[in-house]
Amino acid sequence: MSNKEVKFTADSYPDVKRDPRFAQLTQADIDHFKDILSSPSSVISDASELEGFNTDWIRKYRGQSKLVLKPKTVEEVSAILKYCNEKYLAVVPQGGNTGLVGGSIPVFDEIVISLAAMNSIRSFDDVSGILICDAGVILESADSYLRERGHIFPLDLGAKGSCHVGGNVSTNAGGLRLLRYGSLHGTVLGVEAVLPDGTILHDLQTLRKNNTGFDLKQMFIGAEGTIGIITGISILCPKKSNAVNTAYFGLNSFDKVKEMFIKAKEDLGEILSAFELMDGLTQDIFHKASGRTYPLADRYPFHVLIETSGSNSEHDSAKLEAFLESVMGEEIVADGTVAQDETQAQTLWRWREGLPEACAHYGGTYKYDFSIPLNDFYALVEDCRERFNKAGLVSPIDGDESKPVIGVVGWGHMGDSNLHLNVPVRRYDKEVENLLEPWLYEWIQKKNGSISAEHGLGFAKRDYVQYSRDPTSLEIMRRVKRTFDPKGIMNP
Amino acid sequence: MSNKEVKFTADSYPDVKRDPRFAQLTQADIDHFKDILSSPSSVISDASELEGFNTDWIRKYRGQSKLVLKPKTVEEVSAILKYCNEKYLAVVPQGGNTGLVGGSIPVFDEIVISLAAMNSIRSFDDVSGILICDAGVILESADSYLRERGHIFPLDLGAKGSCHVGGNVSTNAGGLRLLRYGSLHGTVLGVEAVLPDGTILHDLQTLRKNNTGFDLKQMFIGAEGTIGIITGISILCPKKSNAVNTAYFGLNSFDKVKEMFIKAKEDLGEILSAFELMDGLTQDIFHKASGRTYPLADRYPFHVLIETSGSNSEHDSAKLEAFLESVMGEEIVADGTVAQDETQAQTLWRWREGLPEACAHYGGTYKYDFSIPLNDFYALVEDCRERFNKAGLVSPIDGDESKPVIGVVGWGHMGDSNLHLNVPVRRYDKEVENLLEPWLYEWIQKKNGSISAEHGLGFAKRDYVQYSRDPTSLEIMRRVKRTFDPKGIMNP
Repeated sequence: MSNKEVKFTADSYPDVKRDPRFAQLTQADIDHFKDILSSPSSVISDASELEGFNTDWIRKYRGQSKLVLKPKTVEEVSAILKYCNEKYLAVVPQGGNTGLVGGSIPVFDEIVISLAAMNSIRSFDDVSGILICDAGVILESADSYLRERGHIFPLDLGAKGSCHVGGNVSTNAGGLRLLRYGSLHGTVLGVEAVLPDGTILHDLQTLRKNNTGFDLKQMFIGAEGTIGIITGISILCPKKSNAVNTAYFGLNSFDKVKEMFIKAKEDLGEILSAFELMDGLTQDIFHKASGRTYPLADRYPFHVLIETSGSNSEHDSAKLEAFLESVMGEEIVADGTVAQDETQAQTLWRWREGLPEACAHYGGTYKYDFSIPLNDFYALVEDCRERFNKAGLVSPIDGDESKPVIGVVGWGHMGDSNLHLNVPVRRYDKEVENLLEPWLYEWIQKKNGSISAEHGLGFAKRDYVQYSRDPTSLEIMRRVKRTFDPKGIMNP
Repeated sequence: MSNKEVKFTADSYPDVKRDPRFAQLTQADIDHFKDILSSPSSVISDASELEGFNTDWIRKYRGQSKLVLKPKTVEEVSAILKYCNEKYLAVVPQGGNTGLVGGSIPVFDEIVISLAAMNSIRSFDDVSGILICDAGVILESADSYLRERGHIFPLDLGAKGSCHVGGNVSTNAGGLRLLRYGSLHGTVLGVEAVLPDGTILHDLQTLRKNNTGFDLKQMFIGAEGTIGIITGISILCPKKSNAVNTAYFGLNSFDKVKEMFIKAKEDLGEILSAFELMDGLTQDIFHKASGRTYPLADRYPFHVLIETSGSNSEHDSAKLEAFLESVMGEEIVADGTVAQDETQAQTLWRWREGLPEACAHYGGTYKYDFSIPLNDFYALVEDCRERFNKAGLVSPIDGDESKPVIGVVGWGHMGDSNLHLNVPVRRYDKEVENLLEPWLYEWIQKKNGSISAEHGLGFAKRDYVQYSRDPTSLEIMRRVKRTFDPKGIMNP
């Protein structure tokens, strides 16, 4: 499927209008940027090159930017924003462009400011575990760099090979290690950021504690580039664990999954570092898309991947064995396997990490990211599946090509009550979308969940904020936005 | 020593002027508050009762408030602030009044809004570990409530018997468990707060992840009541550990302390929950003030208290034994003792937790709370001690009563690079103060530390912010303050 087939977001959503206050880009603007940026390769206006920056990887959103800028320093970012702010030119900051909600993609002709050329590690202190680096460093590169030095990045997610650490912070990414190492609001010690008027905020703290005035960096974590551009971060990185164990299980019901989760917290305690749920259908889709053999002899309605990380392999193995004995003995799990080495562990992880790609493999996927209290955690997937079956829109892989929907699937970080609901489709389709929204958001609101657990709002959910936030909060958010970005040029 | 001897802050600091824009409290105002508050006991204007709210517990600051209000509900807080904002009456929110920097004490005649009457637990979910409670709940009460339910509060500090959880969040308190459970920016899931104009922000989230728009609660964590009053919190509480071990050591140099710290992180890994440094002089002062026998046969230049918390006592004991063997065998520590039961553990903890009180015991204490990179961690205490010895102002307990200073001591959370420097004195004295400030702040700035690690700025450090924050950050802080509190009535 080529990019040509991705519709312009502006055409898919005709109700969304370009703000007429924003200026149109001129050749004089482009010339000016060529003047202020040190390298000619930092100014990209060639149509073929622009395409990748205008389209998101799930091929749902497509902007019409005529200009991408790739500054190399924080001063260049500052000069760009100062100019854009003066000229009323709207901008969209972009990291690795791995977002799932259209947050890093222009809607109209906004200028894309890519952080890809700011990709240096600035410093690392192996006593304190504090890393300072550019926003454009790729997550996996940062993690590899740290692993060579006995540490790990406190965040891990499927898109690690492409996503930028600055983007992770801007979107307050959750990911696979949150259960163990907590949210970025706790681990990020400081940010360097550029405000819309070009002001540079130098706040790359390397202190775990600094209560001197407001903790400004917190405002940038999860702001999705709406109040400024993060150009650098300092972050506290945990020690690499000496002992890491990975295991994969099959279970017959969601009630069994809940029992297993409580057991895992009891028996594995402080070494439990991941508890990932995948329903049976996700494993089928990954199996088909990847051609891999299932990890267990059978395929079950639910699968769980757990990981432990600790400092003492003997103790960790003893804890894991005790846990296995009890969940097998009490028939909480139907089957399971423990990785015997790093390669086997990576193979098991593929059955979880490969899901976003596998779901998008057959045309596209409607993606949702909810926080739901554990008792109702999986009911949403079941309700949604029933809704689509009733509508007669579903046919499995290799089935009836005229049906848009392949299935309704769910996976997620059980430890954080965070469910990823996906509807893999053969093609994006208004009828499917209308069945999903606002029905899903209303369902979540009734259960006091959040419509945006770890993915952020982006373009996809800008009109649905009120399902998870009350009017007072929204008014305060508007005030904060105006305080930082009075002209509203940032990610409009 | 009676409260009479505490000078008014306004007299001690004649350069600080009352803002003439603020109205003077009238009888009509008091009558209005009696009208809008449900209970007559919520309005306190009797001089003898006011004294406790006007004076801080280290007897350094004393305000002249004529009125204390103790609202019972968030609606009452809202009605109070709405009125004060309209009438230009300045207010100071107050929790347990255990602060060390004069942040909860009026300077002039500000109205004190005490949260003491809002002290209910609202709910607790023992599956997720999420507690929702009023801001005025005393930390120790919250912790006891949680312990009965198999959990603990993720924060612990010496003042737990008096301090309020709302005050802890407002000041972003650090304390004894940060090493293990991280900062409140990570564990607090939501706040209920009242803005200066009376608007109620209902944001008592119970979700670990909610990326729907800006994370507003972060702005209230550590804002010290300058943008609104926190009336309720929701917080993620960890499971109570099955196994807790406490040990106390004597060491001969700070280099040995550093070696021990690295060993502890290696050998104890994920179960290390506290690493507290106390210098020898702190232990002498506690010994004299409390009359207790030293925990070890000898007294050493440095003492360290460590705590481990884990899920498996057998594994934890094995880890601790291996650690003891190596630090004793390699002569890193000179002597040590491990608590054999809960009572012994509490006794050992007194030698750390009793220090603030012991230092204030002989008249008062100048208290500082710094973040300092580990290499220079203790050098500050040595430099400061030398400075006072040179000035001839020091004489130990039971020594020359004409000398104001008893000694210069240091203790702190080594795991967080957080040093508490204290100068216990027989009386507060301008000459002592002038030797301390700004010299201390300049020393910290040179080492890229923070002048306010976990205690906050309060009144004490309002003029010294620039030592830890650059002008851009300060300008943004001013903008944020204006956004939330345009009239500036909150904790002026």
